[in-house]
Formats: sequence, structure tokens, C-alpha cells
Amino acid sequence: MTEHSSDLVKTVANLLIDKNLLLVTAESCTGGLIAATCTELPGSSQWFDRGFVTYSNQAKQDMLGVPAHIIDKYGAVSQQVVEAMARGAYIASGGENRISVSVSGIAGPDGGTPDKPVGTVWIGLFDGNAIYSRLLQLSGSRSEIRTATLNDVLGSMLVSWLSRK
Amino acid sequence: MTEHSSDLVKTVANLLIDKNLLLVTAESCTGGLIAATCTELPGSSQWFDRGFVTYSNQAKQDMLGVPAHIIDKYGAVSQQVVEAMARGAYIASGGENRISVSVSGIAGPDGGTPDKPVGTVWIGLFDGNAIYSRLLQLSGSRSEIRTATLNDVLGSMLVSWLSRK
Repeated sequence: MTEHSSDLVKTVANLLIDKNLLLVTAESCTGGLIAATCTELPGSSQWFDRGFVTYSNQAKQDMLGVPAHIIDKYGAVSQQVVEAMARGAYIASGGENRISVSVSGIAGPDGGTPDKPVGTVWIGLFDGNAIYSRLLQLSGSRSEIRTATLNDVLGSMLVSWLSRK
Repeated sequence: MTEHSSDLVKTVANLLIDKNLLLVTAESCTGGLIAATCTELPGSSQWFDRGFVTYSNQAKQDMLGVPAHIIDKYGAVSQQVVEAMARGAYIASGGENRISVSVSGIAGPDGGTPDKPVGTVWIGLFDGNAIYSRLLQLSGSRSEIRTATLNDVLGSMLVSWLSRK
């Protein structure tokens, strides 16, 4: 965890507490890094509820209810799947007074294709009403891509959304 | 992630691949750190299936089927709960050709009691037949307790169990 991530978590924590919201995470390529970084902060049980590390496609179906035909049609790394992951995490967590974030991407070094090179990462957020998603095109090592994704989810998704509400 | 953790993950990965087993994690106080450390290794989708970050008690019930009366009677940080978490993760993941590990503890700095001081951590492993659990009494900062737990799960639980089989 970088110092930058740690600062972002503190900002996210204060905003969530202020708005009386719990956070739920659904992670594929970051593999629990977002949840682990959030829960590194003392007192995180006040605002962090649970996390789903859905590394395999079967896990995305079982744990988040992502339909198999969506994965087959668009691929696991797609806007459709990351949005279904965010919705599924929200619903599976019981909903209400919470927001969910989701990640699906290719952290490398293998797994890239011409259409979806290494560093292609979709991130999503669901607040119970609206869904937000964004495509990241990152570069660097596996670790750098995962850390950049973490910081984007915390900063450009969570802090931005929470600051607007 | 320390270099020691990274080396342990490589050993765990090779043993799991050799035995054709998938790993499932169920984490409370480590909050996804075990899953995140495992999936930092390239190619981890070959042996890492999914992780449950069950930070709240409700999440332990919803995601892993830990009975509420067990949590009420023994507390979330107990042998009974960590064993129920390991069994629940195994079952929820579909079972067969996999092993599950679980963690529930008090990473601090708050949350300790005279009976269960900060650093009290239960870790568990379920292989589909037998369940193993162990009490750790750790000291240090929140981050040090979480890292020590990670290394104990990887080393003294997983490497030990996989090397014996």
C-alpha cells in the first residue's frame, strides 16, 4: 500500500461515515487489494461491510449473480460484467445505506489480447439507483496496474462520487 | 506485502498446482490481505479461486453461513467461528479439489478485551474432510499483526498442510 492509497482511504472513510454509508467491494484483477487497503485503517469496521474476491468466472456467477451469458458474450473484462458485479455485490450485501465498487481487468503480464491489452481495466460503482463505470487503460507492471486501479477506484470513483452527494 | 510473504505465496502456488487444488479464503481481520497477496503473483488464476472478506458479523452469516448463535455464544474471534468460516467458504465455493483457509482476530489498536487482547487471532483450514485451527497470540501494530497473520496462514497452515499431503 502506498502513502497515496492510505490518504485516499482516510478521505473515503470520513466521507462514508459522514453520509452513514457502508462500502462493499467486488474485485477481480485487484484480488482483494481494495478491501485489504481499506481495512488497514483502524476502525474500518465502522464503514467497511464486506468484500467479494471473484477471481474466477464461476465465482462471479456464484457470489455476485453475474449471468454466464453476459460473461460469454462480452468477456469478463467488460463494462457489462463490471456493472453486473457492482449491482450483484450491492444486492448480495443486503443493499440500503451502502455503495458498492467493482473491478475487472487484465493486470498482466499475461492474458492480454489485441482488443484488450494488459492494463485494460473496467471499474464500476453502484449506489442503489445509478450505476457508474469507467474504462482505464493503464501501463506498467502487474503490481503498478493493480495499485493504479486501487487509487482510481478510491479517488476518481469513490471520493468523486461521495463529494458530489 | 513483504518479500517473505511473496516467497511463501510462490511455495503455496507450486504445491497447490502440483496437487491440482484451488485455494479459497475467508478473511475477517486481515480484510482481503491474504487474497491480495496471493493474487499479486502472476498466473494466480491457475490456483486461486475466490475470497470472502467477511468483515461484519452479518457478512459472516450471509456469505459463509456461520450461524448467528455461534457468533453470539463464542464471539466472532473464536475457534468455533473460524472453523465455521473455513467450512462455509469451502461449501460456498462448490467444494471438491480445493482447500479453504479462514481468519478471525483482533488486529487493533481497539477492540481488545481482557479475555481476548489485541493480537488474538484464530486461523483455520478445511480440506473437505478434516478441519485444522490454531490460536495465534501476536503483538505489534495493526499492520504488523495483519502481516504476521498472513505469513502464519501461508506458512504454518498452508505450506505445512500441503507438504504433508
